[in-house]
Amino acid sequence: MQNSSENTNTYIYGKNSVLEAITKNPKRINKIFFSNGVNFDNRLKKIKELAQENSILFSFTNLNKFNKYFELEGKDAKEINFQGVVALVSPVEFYDFDKFLNEKSNKFRKIVILDGVEDPHNFGAIVRTLAAAEYDGVIVPKHRSCPISATVEKTSVGAINHIPVMKVNSLPYVVDMLKKNDWWIIAADGNCVDNYYDINYKDMNFAIILGAEGEGVSKTLLNKADFKVKIPSAFESLNVSASAAVIIYESIRQIHQK
Amino acid sequence: MQNSSENTNTYIYGKNSVLEAITKNPKRINKIFFSNGVNFDNRLKKIKELAQENSILFSFTNLNKFNKYFELEGKDAKEINFQGVVALVSPVEFYDFDKFLNEKSNKFRKIVILDGVEDPHNFGAIVRTLAAAEYDGVIVPKHRSCPISATVEKTSVGAINHIPVMKVNSLPYVVDMLKKNDWWIIAADGNCVDNYYDINYKDMNFAIILGAEGEGVSKTLLNKADFKVKIPSAFESLNVSASAAVIIYESIRQIHQK
Repeated sequence: MQNSSENTNTYIYGKNSVLEAITKNPKRINKIFFSNGVNFDNRLKKIKELAQENSILFSFTNLNKFNKYFELEGKDAKEINFQGVVALVSPVEFYDFDKFLNEKSNKFRKIVILDGVEDPHNFGAIVRTLAAAEYDGVIVPKHRSCPISATVEKTSVGAINHIPVMKVNSLPYVVDMLKKNDWWIIAADGNCVDNYYDINYKDMNFAIILGAEGEGVSKTLLNKADFKVKIPSAFESLNVSASAAVIIYESIRQIHQK
Repeated sequence: MQNSSENTNTYIYGKNSVLEAITKNPKRINKIFFSNGVNFDNRLKKIKELAQENSILFSFTNLNKFNKYFELEGKDAKEINFQGVVALVSPVEFYDFDKFLNEKSNKFRKIVILDGVEDPHNFGAIVRTLAAAEYDGVIVPKHRSCPISATVEKTSVGAINHIPVMKVNSLPYVVDMLKKNDWWIIAADGNCVDNYYDINYKDMNFAIILGAEGEGVSKTLLNKADFKVKIPSAFESLNVSASAAVIIYESIRQIHQK
């Protein structure tokens, strides 16, 4: 978890508050922390059930570590009774992938899938570029993605509030669903052979998969991709947000250039 | 000046040490600090003369502010006798613009000119992209540029040691000289009309001017440019390192695509 002073995520605590949040807006809950060895009464059981139902991560920990956060919020640590549960609530409402997939659109759509990009500066920079290029969304996995923090908000110059962010359990599943629905999948990885500018981005729905720095796109996703491309480099591979800018704008060039 | 712990620039002090450094390797001296009200003896006079001759910035200040730096280096502040002079020495040897301009090359050359990019992350990211794209160098002004720090070295993943960095007194002068020597000047600014992909980057020497975030390219340089281009954006303009990646790779695409 990153420095809370850099993070616009909000922590909430107490059985009723957490139960209300997870019931009303499960997509905004990033994670739930239960107290080590807590006795699960009905409300805590319900919270755990809803977390499982909505694929929300949870873990067991010493909740006193959150004292400092609530002290920063002006509370007195001695008076905080967590009642065994703390939830991390995102300031951004995640968009539903199935809803996105089934939406009717009178134009071809284009998105980016981030496979393991955890750095908030890179994530924010990519979101800013997506907004500039009028892309339709970004998909990130529940594990190995970047929390929507103040750093992301700042680096994206607010674009994070304009670009639909979809947080999903399984990227391979998402890629399969996209392919079934007439989307084309482009994986960008330094080890591929074809150049990113030698494929055609026009007249199709497409998703560009970008991987984590150093690791690239995972093999499972590479194998599912319709196109595998690289950005040629005489030095190290480009930084992931630079790669994103290069490929995204090549697609824009092809689509818009007369 | 940025946090010295983040900075690989080295401070040196004492009349003899500074005199030796400025005599042997003036291009590596970023700045010289004289003590307020110091009495200029022969050696300090010589240092000042050489600074002026080599266009090295100098200023007058209370040198005690450097105590902390040397304490970090393991020295005892009470024992430091600055002898009235401290110099900031860069770890990178700057490349000489006139030398660069007069070099014979059997291929067309391409460089970037940064007009006021002071953020070390952006500077480092741009240098990394330049190395990836085999550009021939980067020109920065003496004022309003970014010191070559550890952050730059890290963000560039070491590319800062491979790309010639030219630090110059006057960007307008440099642009005039380039034009006289058969280079074409491309200014990239969000307020321009033509799209960056509608110009031809082939078969010419060219320099791309990128401006500071928010301010863009200065009017003087815009007026001197042969081409003025924008990267189309539906949101805020792109971050300067993303802009650099997009334009640099469009030039690479045009030059390399069959």
